[in-house]
Amino acid sequence: MKAVYPGTFDPITMGHKDLIIRASKIFDVLIVGVALNLQKNPLFSIDKRISFLEKVTDNIRNVTVDHFDGLLVDFAVKHGTNIILKGIRAMTDFEYEFQMAQINQNLNKEIQTLFLVTNQKYSFLSSGAVKEVAINRGSIKSLVPDEVHDEIVSCFRNGMF
Amino acid sequence: MKAVYPGTFDPITMGHKDLIIRASKIFDVLIVGVALNLQKNPLFSIDKRISFLEKVTDNIRNVTVDHFDGLLVDFAVKHGTNIILKGIRAMTDFEYEFQMAQINQNLNKEIQTLFLVTNQKYSFLSSGAVKEVAINRGSIKSLVPDEVHDEIVSCFRNGMF
Amino acid sequence: MKAVYPGTFDPITMGHKDLIIRASKIFDVLIVGVALNLQKNPLFSIDKRISFLEKVTDNIRNVTVDHFDGLLVDFAVKHGTNIILKGIRAMTDFEYEFQMAQINQNLNKEIQTLFLVTNQKYSFLSSGAVKEVAINRGSIKSLVPDEVHDEIVSCFRNGMF
Amino acid sequence: MKAVYPGTFDPITMGHKDLIIRASKIFDVLIVGVALNLQKNPLFSIDKRISFLEKVTDNIRNVTVDHFDGLLVDFAVKHGTNIILKGIRAMTDFEYEFQMAQINQNLNKEIQTLFLVTNQKYSFLSSGAVKEVAINRGSIKSLVPDEVHDEIVSCFRNGMF
Amino acid sequence: MKAVYPGTFDPITMGHKDLIIRASKIFDVLIVGVALNLQKNPLFSIDKRISFLEKVTDNIRNVTVDHFDGLLVDFAVKHGTNIILKGIRAMTDFEYEFQMAQINQNLNKEIQTLFLVTNQKYSFLSSGAVKEVAINRGSIKSLVPDEVHDEIVSCFRNGMF
Amino acid sequence: MKAVYPGTFDPITMGHKDLIIRASKIFDVLIVGVALNLQKNPLFSIDKRISFLEKVTDNIRNVTVDHFDGLLVDFAVKHGTNIILKGIRAMTDFEYEFQMAQINQNLNKEIQTLFLVTNQKYSFLSSGAVKEVAINRGSIKSLVPDEVHDEIVSCFRNGMF
Repeated sequence: MKAVYPGTFDPITMGHKDLIIRASKIFDVLIVGVALNLQKNPLFSIDKRISFLEKVTDNIRNVTVDHFDGLLVDFAVKHGTNIILKGIRAMTDFEYEFQMAQINQNLNKEIQTLFLVTNQKYSFLSSGAVKEVAINRGSIKSLVPDEVHDEIVSCFRNGMF
Repeated sequence: MKAVYPGTFDPITMGHKDLIIRASKIFDVLIVGVALNLQKNPLFSIDKRISFLEKVTDNIRNVTVDHFDGLLVDFAVKHGTNIILKGIRAMTDFEYEFQMAQINQNLNKEIQTLFLVTNQKYSFLSSGAVKEVAINRGSIKSLVPDEVHDEIVSCFRNGMF
Repeated sequence: MKAVYPGTFDPITMGHKDLIIRASKIFDVLIVGVALNLQKNPLFSIDKRISFLEKVTDNIRNVTVDHFDGLLVDFAVKHGTNIILKGIRAMTDFEYEFQMAQINQNLNKEIQTLFLVTNQKYSFLSSGAVKEVAINRGSIKSLVPDEVHDEIVSCFRNGMF
Repeated sequence: MKAVYPGTFDPITMGHKDLIIRASKIFDVLIVGVALNLQKNPLFSIDKRISFLEKVTDNIRNVTVDHFDGLLVDFAVKHGTNIILKGIRAMTDFEYEFQMAQINQNLNKEIQTLFLVTNQKYSFLSSGAVKEVAINRGSIKSLVPDEVHDEIVSCFRNGMF
Repeated sequence: MKAVYPGTFDPITMGHKDLIIRASKIFDVLIVGVALNLQKNPLFSIDKRISFLEKVTDNIRNVTVDHFDGLLVDFAVKHGTNIILKGIRAMTDFEYEFQMAQINQNLNKEIQTLFLVTNQKYSFLSSGAVKEVAINRGSIKSLVPDEVHDEIVSCFRNGMF
Repeated sequence: MKAVYPGTFDPITMGHKDLIIRASKIFDVLIVGVALNLQKNPLFSIDKRISFLEKVTDNIRNVTVDHFDGLLVDFAVKHGTNIILKGIRAMTDFEYEFQMAQINQNLNKEIQTLFLVTNQKYSFLSSGAVKEVAINRGSIKSLVPDEVHDEIVSCFRNGMF
């Protein structure tokens, strides 16, 4: 069984990493799909976002990183699966994801969206929170994976994302 | 009994159409009020948004389309009614609409806001979803009314809204 | 236009009264429908609940009180209307009412459920709250209509409901 | 990949059936786990609830029905899996299920709870709704699977559950 | 500054203990108020519930345990304070507590309700969850304070609460 | 006991004023902290926002106004307190504040966030609502404190914020 796990990952957080590790134990193959999402104005370039994910998932044999533009359902089909995996942290997340799941099923009847609940330890944590803390010069040590911490901090320091 | 049904309609969806049809059977007269809403940066021009609505409601005898700038409560008064009709699809909708209903009653004690629940078939559907699917080149066939589908698609194709 | 406004009214609160008054200005005829609801174990007898409502609505010309057992949609049809009016105070209310509205539309395609938001002054107030305060010997002066206050208090005093 | 799908199924609804069919296409083996749940006072006996499920899943090769008393995590372990599948229909569902997922992970670190969103067509539908409609003598034709409809109706008619 | 922290504590959980410790650092004096709550049918007797709290708070100098029947606002006044402290774990908690706060302010204008968010580590944990796990013979080691764990387990074992 | 009460106050509303008055009776010292929040593009300049707050709190002996850039937890520490006070009006507020409280505790273990519920009279009122009404030329008489009403109105009239 193969699943795609889409997101903007702007940037990757400890919550994302935890979810990827858990999902890699459930599915035979996990494709992490980085959405270009240019209309949402991501802070980090698509290259940086992919590179962070590759560093973090380097050791997990059955996880690969890809990126996509266009419809998520087409990205899933391209990878030969009809299973989309999403993490949910809180109720407002859930309502949005619920609507996206319906839209995707509307676009492609075969698509199934599975949800995995974020580890309670990271339920407060989002990419937005990482950016807010970093912009205000707070420590993001426990918020992002060790593998990419220094690189992310230096992005904020020299303003190059 | 007359009611105003306000919205940005950027663009009209199947959910809006369904709600207008149902409301036209409840109220003697229904005024669809297209809000200019320039501060929200609508994608479609006010003329396009009105014209789509007029095409869709053309056959419904007791529905007319108007637009407004300024306060919704003043628009209702201008049309000689104190009844505002809103559709709700989900809980986060509801909380926002709940606060708007209180603000409007605060601005004009006579104003009553009535809510009609979106048909479950369209509960996932919003103007935002239509735009997201269309921008990513997915089919919006089942998301917008037939009467305006081709025109909306061609707007996205030639980038003229 | 005629509407039915159903509830258990165990007992009537200031929030119910406020909503009935506002609804009586919107609809030509308003039928307040007291649900027997024996499986929910109401504290007050159906006769007491009806009698409280009759006292409170005595002066409102276009409001009548009736009771029902069985399906709400059948009660509406019996009164020759397809419009159900419900009050909502809060988000958890809304989710439950949302589901009931869908079930009722499923039972009878013509049925429309309209929601009116509770006056913010009474948004905290429920029949359950009245009972909790009264059982703990607190004052319910501002929680229930004047017309029935003394009678409700004496029910709690002598344990006869 | 094997998953357990637990519930009280008091009685099975069209929503349950739809979810079982979709899940049977995702997982290699799906164990439907009927919880005895005596403290929740189910209306139907455990035998009836199991028998309804067996009739409905009879044709689905990779689905089997079992029942359990005690902890869900132990039931999953007994079946040699660490994957629990739950359906969610609405936000209040979600909050409760979210807490149960955390408790189960607390009881057994290996346990993963996956959520599948109920088909929008059945998002309003619960076992409680089926019982409320049936008790009030409404039609449950579109609410429960054809395979068990007559049997469920006759349970309500002769009061034997 | 003195505050009352009311609850049913049926039985005390790790979440309650954590909140009491944190509150004891904010307020000069903290009165833990155990509600008799007979209408809610607590499992543990009022004596057991008080005794568990006393054991757990024994070492915290500025915390005392009391119980009350009747209105919470009267209990606060009796202790010479107008500050009520409540813990919230989740959104549905919050909506209920929000309404209780309004009712209490309605009963006594001077009353202020302050909320402290439960430690994320215990956000899933409630007295109900403890009971459900214990009844199903799961381990409650990490769910209740060490000081009372054995006693609570033995209550479940010999059915004496 | 000292607390900081942070916000953007763009501009101050009657809800903010009510909360400040109530908090000033609970805490020995209350520091109102105006966040620069330049990335959120406030309409009013930091000087105007501070000056409005100073006018409104002029008569309250134990309240002082300060502003901050950077992390809120650092602002609290600078003022020698670990108590943050936040107002909550509604459930979506709550979820956001809940996450911020967890992030702040993550940044500084000693930080405690206390929540005070907005007066029900102002539960619908936000700075955003004030701006929306004022931009549409509605009266904000009952939405902002008397002390600053004329000044705020004249800002909107001459477009100088």
